[in-house]
Amino acid sequence: MKLLEEKIRQEGQVIGTDILKVDMFLNHQIDVNLLDEMGKEFYRLFKDKGINKILTVESSGIAIAVMAAKYFNVPVVFAKKSSHKNVGNELYSAHSHSFTHGKDYEMIVSKKYLSPDDNILFIDDFLAGGNAAFSVLDILKQSGANLVGIGIAIEKGFQDGGKKIREMGIELQSLAIVEEMDEVEGINFRNAEC
Amino acid sequence: MKLLEEKIRQEGQVIGTDILKVDMFLNHQIDVNLLDEMGKEFYRLFKDKGINKILTVESSGIAIAVMAAKYFNVPVVFAKKSSHKNVGNELYSAHSHSFTHGKDYEMIVSKKYLSPDDNILFIDDFLAGGNAAFSVLDILKQSGANLVGIGIAIEKGFQDGGKKIREMGIELQSLAIVEEMDEVEGINFRNAEC
Repeated sequence: MKLLEEKIRQEGQVIGTDILKVDMFLNHQIDVNLLDEMGKEFYRLFKDKGINKILTVESSGIAIAVMAAKYFNVPVVFAKKSSHKNVGNELYSAHSHSFTHGKDYEMIVSKKYLSPDDNILFIDDFLAGGNAAFSVLDILKQSGANLVGIGIAIEKGFQDGGKKIREMGIELQSLAIVEEMDEVEGINFRNAEC
Repeated sequence: MKLLEEKIRQEGQVIGTDILKVDMFLNHQIDVNLLDEMGKEFYRLFKDKGINKILTVESSGIAIAVMAAKYFNVPVVFAKKSSHKNVGNELYSAHSHSFTHGKDYEMIVSKKYLSPDDNILFIDDFLAGGNAAFSVLDILKQSGANLVGIGIAIEKGFQDGGKKIREMGIELQSLAIVEEMDEVEGINFRNAEC
């Protein structure tokens, strides 16, 4: 998505060859017009798939998921992050790890909001090693809900989460895929639109 | 706001006389059409106030803030919750306490995203004792940003946060104010629209 790639180039901050900060328009301050275009693009990509619910993970996935959900006219469910290991039996849960925050957590979703009748689009802001995505897959498996596809704002193509997910046969659409990046050289996108 | 009051009556779950769970449409699963109407209503209430930024707190304030921001055509900034006390000097921070999660946290906002030029609408999902709101006021004071008003989805009118804020002369608009509630008797709203 050209608009997002341009925004990342203009305002994203590359630290070393691995960290991309998009605090100024996505993860702390949010550009709602860009967000709206991203929601529209996810709708264009997945509109014919019979999606009846969008799943995301707190916190930074929520804004994107909600904006997309408006186009799909479906509810959003956001998975919560808990530091408690004992989450009770009314919840689906999966162990996960945040590299950003450097800690383990339990990803949890109430059993009330996922069922075998659901056709789920999972939306998140970042995909790198795929830790959060694999926890979501685990939770969806527990619930019996059907995963229709995954929509990611920014994929770090130089980490292997995206590759693993595509090899599983899951439809993964990332609006911008960073192929490589460097503080000096800048960012190369995979299949950049010109 | 009649639509929200009806939704709370129909789907909200009252536990005892103090806990109101709205997990099914606001705090875990999100009804995006209701959210859109709430955003529109906040715009109606505050549209002439020169607001240039909406501030909220992760996680459950984000969805409402983003939907409102679309109408105002302004960016959202969401305050983050950190368990670290030492947050560095690039951040505004305020000590706060979550009664829902039973723990203390530091509310933090990057200094890059709040300045004396900003006219801020603070939006959140719940107001009860006002703990989060007072931490936001603290952060806004540190930044020099001007608070134009506060928009709350659901105010617990039987707790004193709302009273304290109104007594400070701040414009506080809550879309639904629960005057009293009870598992058996149900919910009474203040100034309910008929």
